[in-house]
Amino acid sequence: MNEEIKFDAQGLIPAIVQDANTRQVLMCAYMNAESLQATLDSGYATFWSRRRQKLWRKGETSGHVQQVREIRYDCDGDTLLLLVVPQGPACHTGETSCFYRTLSLGVRA
Amino acid sequence: MNEEIKFDAQGLIPAIVQDANTRQVLMCAYMNAESLQATLDSGYATFWSRRRQKLWRKGETSGHVQQVREIRYDCDGDTLLLLVVPQGPACHTGETSCFYRTLSLGVRA
Repeated sequence: MNEEIKFDAQGLIPAIVQDANTRQVLMCAYMNAESLQATLDSGYATFWSRRRQKLWRKGETSGHVQQVREIRYDCDGDTLLLLVVPQGPACHTGETSCFYRTLSLGVRA
Repeated sequence: MNEEIKFDAQGLIPAIVQDANTRQVLMCAYMNAESLQATLDSGYATFWSRRRQKLWRKGETSGHVQQVREIRYDCDGDTLLLLVVPQGPACHTGETSCFYRTLSLGVRA
């Protein structure tokens, strides 16, 4: 594994997923070394499900897979950015992006 | 604080920062409740520095502040997405985005 990629104490790194064409930020999930390798090998976004504690190829049940065009990493090496071509919505709700809700600004939350 | 926002066991939530105009993903940092409130109150991106263990208004030393246009949150409520107008590069290296390096695809990392 690339030495510049830093996994946290749980062996995980957050992976931001952005649509390579529309530039919309779609979701954020977590990868461990195995899921990053599976992503590199297959070309499809594969994460580590913290809830189910298993490898999870995005879209394995819904069919809404994400073909990976590019994987970037930040200056600290502790966050990934995947540029993908999504086959369908990223969110389980059917929304294109998981970030479909907005906080009010200028109001105490 | 909005009940739909979920901080982790350390009281933190990852905040993805995207340029509101270019749609470029600039950085990812962490917020606690206090820094989210400071962001809402001031309109400028304010994070929690895990290394320095203190509130950190982005650009407080460099002048490269980020004016917040919108704060979105994801379906799980455990990730934030800030749409900002940046006054200068996001990265301490001088790069516009912290995600300036790319992993090779199709090659074992």
